Amino acid sequence: MKILIVGLGVIGASFAKGLKEANYNEVYGLDICKDTLDKAKKMGIIKEGFMNSEDILKESDLVILAIYPKLVLKFIRENINNFKSGTVITDVTGIKEMLMDDILKILPNNIDFVFGHPMAGREKKGIDFSSNEVFKGANYIITPTKINKEENIKLIEKLAKELGFKKIRRITPSYHDKMIAFTSQLPHALAVALINSDEEGRDTGSFIGDSYRDLTRIANINEELWSELFLGNKENLLQTIINFEKELDLIKYAIMNEEREALINLFEKSSERREKL
Amino acid sequence: MKILIVGLGVIGASFAKGLKEANYNEVYGLDICKDTLDKAKKMGIIKEGFMNSEDILKESDLVILAIYPKLVLKFIRENINNFKSGTVITDVTGIKEMLMDDILKILPNNIDFVFGHPMAGREKKGIDFSSNEVFKGANYIITPTKINKEENIKLIEKLAKELGFKKIRRITPSYHDKMIAFTSQLPHALAVALINSDEEGRDTGSFIGDSYRDLTRIANINEELWSELFLGNKENLLQTIINFEKELDLIKYAIMNEEREALINLFEKSSERREKL
Repeated sequence: MKILIVGLGVIGASFAKGLKEANYNEVYGLDICKDTLDKAKKMGIIKEGFMNSEDILKESDLVILAIYPKLVLKFIRENINNFKSGTVITDVTGIKEMLMDDILKILPNNIDFVFGHPMAGREKKGIDFSSNEVFKGANYIITPTKINKEENIKLIEKLAKELGFKKIRRITPSYHDKMIAFTSQLPHALAVALINSDEEGRDTGSFIGDSYRDLTRIANINEELWSELFLGNKENLLQTIINFEKELDLIKYAIMNEEREALINLFEKSSERREKL
Repeated sequence: MKILIVGLGVIGASFAKGLKEANYNEVYGLDICKDTLDKAKKMGIIKEGFMNSEDILKESDLVILAIYPKLVLKFIRENINNFKSGTVITDVTGIKEMLMDDILKILPNNIDFVFGHPMAGREKKGIDFSSNEVFKGANYIITPTKINKEENIKLIEKLAKELGFKKIRRITPSYHDKMIAFTSQLPHALAVALINSDEEGRDTGSFIGDSYRDLTRIANINEELWSELFLGNKENLLQTIINFEKELDLIKYAIMNEEREALINLFEKSSERREKL
């Protein structure tokens, strides 16, 4: 099976590393940056690198799109006639409903796109920060379409398992986007708002413990990617922010009114939920 | 130098472990729980355990109070006549201004209380979760009073260094409480509100990545301790919540109005701040 990874950024190159570890040796890379391709080849994680999609796409049995959400649609559109008949495509995009609607409108019948979301990432961009270690034990979500062939979904599930992912779940795109708004996008919004709410010019670094460090780690954020993800999941994300604000208000009013019992109840609820996780 | 640790919970026992590693061997423990004292002695981290404060306090040169904020005042009040003249007391309390005001009113002249805040902790309670590893590289804050003797402040600073703390800073109690509201209490409030805002009964665990895990770790919270800390720093904490809400609103409105540039600016600001940390 010839596998083509499109985009050897932090995620694409992590896939390449994982595939190498799982003994796939027909893995190719497509990227707009020659240095990245050279580096990947030198690292031994791709057999060959390409800057032009046409020839390699015609030979690829599986295409893994590890590019920004908006580029996924663009790539499919521009290469609509370059795919091998029967090829399987998968992606790594963190939002699904809107993207899938757009792609399914233009996708030819002889190509099967199995939409996926490996729930593992890094704050940093680029091949230099790639590592398949982040996949190990992580969650993988597949959002099947009505036209996906079962064997192709199973192929992606097998691959995810081989890369070290632990829980591999099939859900609808709308449920995916609703859950991800809460478990991934809301935490990023909170981390950004937290660090941005610091007063300018203080020596905050001398007064932090692990909690501040943990809660702001993801405030170092790929601004191009995450602005796309936030806006591509607008209604769901706004709803989680509103739900969050209600809970923060409960804490705020308990402090304001010095209601110790109310605070204790909120803390007991959160502790119980965290223990369960 | 005879050292008495009052309270062999997660923090007190971590101090005992750290002191042992730093080759202090005249370390004693005072606790209300006999099992805890037995355990500490068996672990070799205290020379002897006491359930009655009177005798051991009369011999102690340094007393480390590792008990809940409200108990600190109570302990001083109840033992006002038991301390050795010239003894040095220190504490580990996460709020300072109110506590110091209360204690300085009743503290005899021949006792020197050097107020401290080791900025390292754990979510779990009790001696079984103690570990001096959390101290290594962490921040330590001292909030000197006008009547502290320089030599005694230096003693606590030396001790903190020996325990592995890295940055040891002297600041005013009011600045301490203001900073801690932001770097420690606000993150805890956000973590609690985040996990409490999850919809009941969903299989959230299958859809999380590192971000949700990181941001909710401290939602598992000692409810007795943290309700005291929150209410003991009411005004500062409310102000940080308000500042945070303003920043979250900026994100919310940018999403609502689909202002991609505004989002990118907020993300660039947060990334820059996080990089600096």
